[in-house]
Amino acid sequence: MSATPASQTIHSFDHAIALEPAGGNLFHGRTTPAYWNMIGPFGGITAATLLQAVLQHPERLGDPSALTVNFAGPIVEGPFVIEARPVRTNRNTQHWTIELRQGDEVATTATAFFAVRRETWNCGEAVFPQVPPASDVAPMAGFAPVRWLDAYELRPVRGAKPNVEAGTENPDSVTQFWLRDAPARTPDFAAMAAWCDAFYPRIFLKRAGFVPAGTVSLTTYFHADAPTLAALGNSHVLGSAQAQVFRQGFFDQSAQIWSPQGELLATSHQIVYYKQ
Amino acid sequence: MSATPASQTIHSFDHAIALEPAGGNLFHGRTTPAYWNMIGPFGGITAATLLQAVLQHPERLGDPSALTVNFAGPIVEGPFVIEARPVRTNRNTQHWTIELRQGDEVATTATAFFAVRRETWNCGEAVFPQVPPASDVAPMAGFAPVRWLDAYELRPVRGAKPNVEAGTENPDSVTQFWLRDAPARTPDFAAMAAWCDAFYPRIFLKRAGFVPAGTVSLTTYFHADAPTLAALGNSHVLGSAQAQVFRQGFFDQSAQIWSPQGELLATSHQIVYYKQ
Repeated sequence: MSATPASQTIHSFDHAIALEPAGGNLFHGRTTPAYWNMIGPFGGITAATLLQAVLQHPERLGDPSALTVNFAGPIVEGPFVIEARPVRTNRNTQHWTIELRQGDEVATTATAFFAVRRETWNCGEAVFPQVPPASDVAPMAGFAPVRWLDAYELRPVRGAKPNVEAGTENPDSVTQFWLRDAPARTPDFAAMAAWCDAFYPRIFLKRAGFVPAGTVSLTTYFHADAPTLAALGNSHVLGSAQAQVFRQGFFDQSAQIWSPQGELLATSHQIVYYKQ
Repeated sequence: MSATPASQTIHSFDHAIALEPAGGNLFHGRTTPAYWNMIGPFGGITAATLLQAVLQHPERLGDPSALTVNFAGPIVEGPFVIEARPVRTNRNTQHWTIELRQGDEVATTATAFFAVRRETWNCGEAVFPQVPPASDVAPMAGFAPVRWLDAYELRPVRGAKPNVEAGTENPDSVTQFWLRDAPARTPDFAAMAAWCDAFYPRIFLKRAGFVPAGTVSLTTYFHADAPTLAALGNSHVLGSAQAQVFRQGFFDQSAQIWSPQGELLATSHQIVYYKQ
């Protein structure tokens, strides 16, 4: 007669985004070492945690369609408070304003748009990249001194590591990799929010070198519904990312997350600070 | 001895985004017929007006880098109140949370990121489309029963009107046109915020027909600084827009605004509701 402690059955991702309702629109959470970046949490886990506050809010209507997260200041190791406020509820849609605070400081702001999905005429326009299947690509080890990379299994197709050894600028900033959580976890909207930020800053690849850089604002559009995500199970998804312009300390970076069958599951955009 | 009334010297765009400070973080404005859409103001003018509240806020630091606007509910003809709150001010950057209200209802929410720009290594990666110069393209008349199209001079290169006569689906949803205000107006950040929403819903083009559709959330990244925008003077800019996927009532739409010299001035993304 032995029981497995509950803590051993919880995936580290679920542990990281766990929130305790604290009355009204407030939720308590805390940072976890498993998703630590250089000097704060991995931005993707922060995005997922903010989304989670809405997902478990008792007044929530529908599922995530759009999420914008603004990384306003550092998040330090320890507890934080999230306030998720439903500012407008329509018949089938709902708009949220969200803040993450530590003490009196606002560290992160966000807005989210939720909607009840319904069947319509559907059509894909973006073209699924020609890549070998995940099973033909070897997983890679983390390349940077950041803990959160160990929480993902990355199978690089192209541009997965900045080729700093070469030391020459690249003609493009394209990264493509097969991706899933490590250990594997059936994805949901929170996982997708994190995946969309799993691409290192494009300037590392473009310039073939490391410079100080960090995401300032991240917008994700969730195109796949919950059953589509759940049906992925332990499959890898294909992630693709590229920048359009680097100028005066900021560049943009767009990402796509595809199913192995070529469905575009999510698209995401961010503006990233860089120095030098 | 005659004086021109001040009202005649104000461009209709400046009239539309004019706000009166109402103490603290509050500003009073009102809708204008010149930028009316089907059942409310043109989304671009709302985006520009929300940005304007921050631009004329006494605590504003730096210039716009990112703006996300969420169209949460209808804006009716008449007055509105904007609250622009500086939630976090760092040494060279600032984050804002913004709401537009009519009565007790929140009609629009937004977040904005402002930054003091500085010179860095710069690089364009996106490729300027091969198009004829604006002077070789004839302006087109408005095609839809919306007033705001008259506030812009559009010189279509491709996909400027949905070809509803043909009635067949298009392989892509690309629109490209040369664009400036009508009458011409030297652009600034507010103008750019509006220009980025000057593309009709991509589903009209893709499906070659009109269906109910409207922008839900719009994110714009401002890559060009104020002197770059001012130097455009009366020039046209090239606008380009395309969707990636249409699914279960929502599609995404990305836009680029280019200078005639091939500088990428702004990039923008939106998620759009559609019916059928």
